[in-house]
Amino acid sequence: MTTNEMIDKYKEWVFKCSAYNMALALIGFDKQTIAPSAGEEYRDERTAFLSGELFSIETDPEMMEIMKTLKDDDSIDPDINKAAQLYYDNMLKTVCIPKDEFVSWQKLTNESFNNWRRAKDADDYSIFEPYLKKVIEGSKKLYEYRGKDMPIYDQMLDDYEPGMNRDKYDAFFDALKERLVPLIKKVADKGGIDDSFLYKKCDIDAQKKFMEHLLDYLAYDKSWGYQNETEHPFTDWVCENDCRTTTKYLEDNMVSAIFSTIHECGHAWYEHNIDPKYDGMILSNGVSSGMHESQSRLCENYLGRSKAFWEANYDKLTECFPDLLGGVSLDDFIKAVNVSTPSLVRTEADELTYPMHILIRYEIEKGLFDGTISTEGLDKTWADKYEEYLGIRPEHARDGILQDVHWSDASFGYFPTYALGSAFAAQFMDSMRRDIDVDAYLKEGRYAEIEGWLREHIHRYGCRYNADEIMLKATGKPFDVNYYLDYLEDKYTKLYNL
Amino acid sequence: MTTNEMIDKYKEWVFKCSAYNMALALIGFDKQTIAPSAGEEYRDERTAFLSGELFSIETDPEMMEIMKTLKDDDSIDPDINKAAQLYYDNMLKTVCIPKDEFVSWQKLTNESFNNWRRAKDADDYSIFEPYLKKVIEGSKKLYEYRGKDMPIYDQMLDDYEPGMNRDKYDAFFDALKERLVPLIKKVADKGGIDDSFLYKKCDIDAQKKFMEHLLDYLAYDKSWGYQNETEHPFTDWVCENDCRTTTKYLEDNMVSAIFSTIHECGHAWYEHNIDPKYDGMILSNGVSSGMHESQSRLCENYLGRSKAFWEANYDKLTECFPDLLGGVSLDDFIKAVNVSTPSLVRTEADELTYPMHILIRYEIEKGLFDGTISTEGLDKTWADKYEEYLGIRPEHARDGILQDVHWSDASFGYFPTYALGSAFAAQFMDSMRRDIDVDAYLKEGRYAEIEGWLREHIHRYGCRYNADEIMLKATGKPFDVNYYLDYLEDKYTKLYNL
Repeated sequence: MTTNEMIDKYKEWVFKCSAYNMALALIGFDKQTIAPSAGEEYRDERTAFLSGELFSIETDPEMMEIMKTLKDDDSIDPDINKAAQLYYDNMLKTVCIPKDEFVSWQKLTNESFNNWRRAKDADDYSIFEPYLKKVIEGSKKLYEYRGKDMPIYDQMLDDYEPGMNRDKYDAFFDALKERLVPLIKKVADKGGIDDSFLYKKCDIDAQKKFMEHLLDYLAYDKSWGYQNETEHPFTDWVCENDCRTTTKYLEDNMVSAIFSTIHECGHAWYEHNIDPKYDGMILSNGVSSGMHESQSRLCENYLGRSKAFWEANYDKLTECFPDLLGGVSLDDFIKAVNVSTPSLVRTEADELTYPMHILIRYEIEKGLFDGTISTEGLDKTWADKYEEYLGIRPEHARDGILQDVHWSDASFGYFPTYALGSAFAAQFMDSMRRDIDVDAYLKEGRYAEIEGWLREHIHRYGCRYNADEIMLKATGKPFDVNYYLDYLEDKYTKLYNL
Repeated sequence: MTTNEMIDKYKEWVFKCSAYNMALALIGFDKQTIAPSAGEEYRDERTAFLSGELFSIETDPEMMEIMKTLKDDDSIDPDINKAAQLYYDNMLKTVCIPKDEFVSWQKLTNESFNNWRRAKDADDYSIFEPYLKKVIEGSKKLYEYRGKDMPIYDQMLDDYEPGMNRDKYDAFFDALKERLVPLIKKVADKGGIDDSFLYKKCDIDAQKKFMEHLLDYLAYDKSWGYQNETEHPFTDWVCENDCRTTTKYLEDNMVSAIFSTIHECGHAWYEHNIDPKYDGMILSNGVSSGMHESQSRLCENYLGRSKAFWEANYDKLTECFPDLLGGVSLDDFIKAVNVSTPSLVRTEADELTYPMHILIRYEIEKGLFDGTISTEGLDKTWADKYEEYLGIRPEHARDGILQDVHWSDASFGYFPTYALGSAFAAQFMDSMRRDIDVDAYLKEGRYAEIEGWLREHIHRYGCRYNADEIMLKATGKPFDVNYYLDYLEDKYTKLYNL
């Protein structure tokens, strides 16, 4: 086969994969948002079958040979070299799995998701536990097929954040613990910021009204983005020019939907901003979970909780909630949305205690895969860890072990990237602030221009470079956790007059 | 191959088709409801590709041979004979089309739909006209591949309503014209029923509140049904136990969303009630478009516009609209929702003038396919026909030729089934009223039991029997248009004291 023939086959194959991926992304989004429950079994079985069809395409031996050749062919477009390398790496991870097992696995994770949702509704971990167990055993089996001489959990960590493993994460979390645990304690001892007005009964229609304004401010364009509601907010980049975000309105929390929306729009902007020349191919994805979370958490916390952000939006918010915010000054509002208090639910956690929520999940995942922690009694283990790190215990499984979707669909190794992403974000912010007047842009409603800086320095590359390379391009330095720790120390020392 | 081997292959193939059909139904529903417009082109191209994949599966020569054998094999389950017959008939219709053309056709109809939507938004027929032209030419070409010695429009009519053709529809519409045209005139001359209170500015949130109540009353169970909003209300039976309906709220029409919801729920109930033993196979579909419309229009008009229906629901409605309905008695409300006045928009038309809207479309379709009518100037032709049959002319294309989605995706031959379905419904109602006390059930909120009668006598069969056979089973007689005409004459004579 000539190189040109190979490239033609490659392009045809990329298109084919992108069609199945689009269908599966849409089916998945539908499942998590509006799909009627009685159709679950029928849909899940057929979704698993379609995943199997994609599996067959993705592991086609002829295409593997082509990728193997193209990735190292100096004579062709280096974008194709890079894409072929990434495709080839993924093929190696899947081709070793028997197709029947792959299809059963898809069915199992869908079933597990359904039962996680049931368990959370019923506030009963025992409904979910057998599925969690099966999903862990199933994951182990699938990873064993790879035959790699690397502990399974390290492989999982590497899948979500290439280059990371337990040693590196241990060092990262140790650095966090060293500086944040004493800071969290000092803040808790000091206390004294009133945020009670955020957690009063709060009309959902008024929240939705503010949301329309907020989505406009975030320049989340309806021509390429759509927001829906779900139990667990998430972003699904269905395909090029098509992002789906979700949020969740709470009756007794005025800001939960707001910050989850800013967060998810951060993900959406990342995908939307990737260079269109990569459309439909593997390069047109965020480079790693940590990098993705860096963008969502940068938006949520570094921008969304800043005074400048609310200078542009607070009038509208008070207009929507005159009774609740009538007597609250902008400064008091800013303080309130930055209060740090140990809490049970990760997605509601403040910026300072947030990494502790992640640490707890990281330690549990390590234990689940090195055999020191079991799914039986895991609700108690979970509660114990919350008591140890945050001094509080969940009374209900729905606010404890059942709060997150991630384990239901076997996304083991994902959680640590939330903390890593938060840390990446600090370093990006430092560089961005050197280049542009972020606060002025926020005040003036020029949010799209901030996303423009992020596009230019981070987003547009997609997977063309790895996370380390992008960090270096964007900030001129390798990743350094101290940007994050300095930022948190500075912010909370000032906020609490420590 | 032994019979058992053939049956195994048959079952595997049915499952495979059902998986692609589910994916395509979901993609289609998403496209018509929430999908962001900028992703259109990317999604449409891939959707067309996936339709092509299904095309290849559906026209697999080995499977054609198997169907050909199974349809006539006396030794097997007669359900399989019937299903194989239907599959085989469909295969013959598609296998003759070159796959490339089939895929381009999918792309074209998606593009045409997108441009119909754009044209309607812009109120500009010239945006849509070139696509309508292409879609008509494309349709002709696809039908020509069948090589049948039957005029194309007759084949189209037969596709939606097996057994029907222009001669039969001409006779049907002649019967309608003969008795309805004078009746419409008499009603128009008499007039005098006030329905203006239905068309005042009407809060959409209050409409949505009533809708929640209504969906409960209609026993539209969230575990198998989901309602969304769209420009053109429709029902999509994504798969077993999964129906999606849509509605459209108008600010100046209190009842539009209500009657469209009752209509679409009628479709949804039909699909939901089909015997589960046919799950996933071709028998698990409504038998014809006319039969489907008979169920939706039975619910909308024969049930939904009856006094008994509103005896159960009027209190709730007045509670939602105290200002608009405070002084309106139930009797006056019933009269108002049954007023007959020539109007421009089919989906808003009253029961009596409705068939004239269909007649207009039927005559235009006939003309488009026998060459006597052209797409150029069709907006004028349309307006002329409205003037001829209903005495009114649309000022805007969006209320004229652009109002309906059907021609954008080449559903030529579908419209006549709306009128036919309305007529079927009259005959079904006559039988149902002999068996059960429909009015008592409506008053007592026992809507699901009415659907139970329909399930027992119509729905459960799916495609197992053809429409004629089902009519005979359910009513003991062949279809007779006079049930419909008698019903309308009786109803409107009483309503207007003619």
